[in-house]
Amino acid sequence: MSTKQVITCKAAICWGSGKGVTVEEIEVDPPKATEIRVKMLCASICHTDITSIQGYQYNKFPLALGHEGVGVVESVGDSVKNVKEGDMIIPTYIGECKECENCISGETNLCLTHPLRLSGLMSDNTSRMSIQGQRLYHVLSCATWSEYMVIDANYILKVDPNIDLAHASFISCGFTTGFGAAWKEAKVKKGSSVAVFGLGAVGLGAISGAKMVGATKIIGIDKNEMRREKGEAFGMTHFINPSDSNKSALELVKELSDGMGVDYSFECTGAPPLLTISVEATKMGRGKTIAIGAGLEPIVPFGYLSILLGRTLKGSIFGGIRATSDLSIIADKCLKEEFPLEELFTHEIPLIDINKAFEFLKQPDCVKVVVKM
Amino acid sequence: MSTKQVITCKAAICWGSGKGVTVEEIEVDPPKATEIRVKMLCASICHTDITSIQGYQYNKFPLALGHEGVGVVESVGDSVKNVKEGDMIIPTYIGECKECENCISGETNLCLTHPLRLSGLMSDNTSRMSIQGQRLYHVLSCATWSEYMVIDANYILKVDPNIDLAHASFISCGFTTGFGAAWKEAKVKKGSSVAVFGLGAVGLGAISGAKMVGATKIIGIDKNEMRREKGEAFGMTHFINPSDSNKSALELVKELSDGMGVDYSFECTGAPPLLTISVEATKMGRGKTIAIGAGLEPIVPFGYLSILLGRTLKGSIFGGIRATSDLSIIADKCLKEEFPLEELFTHEIPLIDINKAFEFLKQPDCVKVVVKM
Repeated sequence: MSTKQVITCKAAICWGSGKGVTVEEIEVDPPKATEIRVKMLCASICHTDITSIQGYQYNKFPLALGHEGVGVVESVGDSVKNVKEGDMIIPTYIGECKECENCISGETNLCLTHPLRLSGLMSDNTSRMSIQGQRLYHVLSCATWSEYMVIDANYILKVDPNIDLAHASFISCGFTTGFGAAWKEAKVKKGSSVAVFGLGAVGLGAISGAKMVGATKIIGIDKNEMRREKGEAFGMTHFINPSDSNKSALELVKELSDGMGVDYSFECTGAPPLLTISVEATKMGRGKTIAIGAGLEPIVPFGYLSILLGRTLKGSIFGGIRATSDLSIIADKCLKEEFPLEELFTHEIPLIDINKAFEFLKQPDCVKVVVKM
Repeated sequence: MSTKQVITCKAAICWGSGKGVTVEEIEVDPPKATEIRVKMLCASICHTDITSIQGYQYNKFPLALGHEGVGVVESVGDSVKNVKEGDMIIPTYIGECKECENCISGETNLCLTHPLRLSGLMSDNTSRMSIQGQRLYHVLSCATWSEYMVIDANYILKVDPNIDLAHASFISCGFTTGFGAAWKEAKVKKGSSVAVFGLGAVGLGAISGAKMVGATKIIGIDKNEMRREKGEAFGMTHFINPSDSNKSALELVKELSDGMGVDYSFECTGAPPLLTISVEATKMGRGKTIAIGAGLEPIVPFGYLSILLGRTLKGSIFGGIRATSDLSIIADKCLKEEFPLEELFTHEIPLIDINKAFEFLKQPDCVKVVVKM
């Protein structure tokens, strides 16, 4: 296949907020100078995709969906040096230039040269994807629920071709976001206590990260009883199912932490009421909460006194994980099977059946749906 | 005057939310074992008092008002060791036991043994003050707009009797809260940039603290043009009066910080919309906001994306200042006149005219009203 041809292939498309998803033929242009075109091998579904279908404020349509995945480089632009045809890559939605003020600071993964892109377009504000002659926007930097996609070569990590494809897809967003939140953003200390609200892939990642750095009390909170076993697989020491008790989740966390609250909490649901609860669940004066859930509401009600009493709230994109420096470490651990990522893999569908995925995700036994191309 | 007698004296009282303030005769019991009775010499008015008159959720009435002040010990309880009759003290609303988990951590001033008390009562849940035979509650740990008051000896700092009385009163809450927020909570780094929203005593304290630790760009934001000169006296390098521009305060701060925002911001107003704005005014990925303003609303609307982009929000009570270890340093600097605290002193009234204070506070030239006993 020539690298200079437009490729016609199938992709999952959303035509407008609330209009659902259809798998249709699209055209994918060749990559420009700093870009690569990727043949997707495997993708997965993250809650942010669902929210994109419902319509974030900034989403534009028609939208090519998906941001978790792994693929092989089909062709590269003229100035691409970091990968070549045939390399295995995972897409990222922030880059790492190692030269900007933020990269140099070592304090954040939010590169200023290759930032989080909410426009749904490439860095030059155009798109390589179209449908029926109409420009297609994409979720963040890419569109992984597509047989082919184009991404800027600054927004990828090259990975070992022996990596498990589904696991590689999981670490391209959700799991890594939680893992990094504990490891890089909270900098959870050895021997400390942790509460994780919401045990999807993000929350299970936070449990895994907290375990790695030596937290001794790791409390998972979820209304889905089936998440108990999942949490335990990643290192959770205590499980709270608020549906099982007359007490609130907050009271139950406090009971498990001598009435004081925990050292760190992680809000992994994006449900507005849990922002205040997760802050209040930490120790007065010293507790730290990492907010990583992203709901649809741009403005959320926040209990001001919870933070006023000396607590800290930090937000995080991609768990503070730098797109190459840190993600390569996680990819290496993934390759060495240091995380029980098979616990996340509950369902699999071919791209054409993408709508089944949204049904699976409503079932209590579902954690991650893998999309095979 | 015998130390075991009830003292009848004048105090400023509020009989209920929105019912205004009256100066009336009250009875002040002798101090119990761990307490001291204080003859107040000078007090001042802090915004939290105004809010208490309007009625915080937790306020109970009748309420003896005032929490900023300085006085002399009239008598001490049997087990009090840290002060004696005749000593000069300033009241605090948190103590410092130096033995609890929080004190030992060195990370917070929120002592667990002698905590912030919102009940309006002494540690034993009774009151030493009454009016017409009825129990009087007080603001936090004390009631400084009173000729005499009783306070637990764990909630005071002994100060040099040569200290300027008005200045001592200012450092007992407002100024110190801002100063500490920059010094202890944000830990502002040398050479960094700072934005301070609201230039009352708290905001001017934040400017002063930021200057002391070497911030090089200190932006003050206030709609009151008369605060420009005040800010400059404490070390402000740039002033923004949003009323002077078609642009928002946020845009104006960004303009003064290369479009990136500042390293640290301080929300000193308690106005709900400023919480999100002060967070957004800091650098993406690295900015830190200290919330020290306390408004009436327990739940405030919060722009979630502002924090999600890697920023940090920390709340603070008393600016993270430990009631003895740190406040003694500030009192020493106050004694040595290292702060231009005379800039805060704009109005003075006798206790009996307390209602004039609330009128003065509406005038643009007013920063602090001193109450002389």
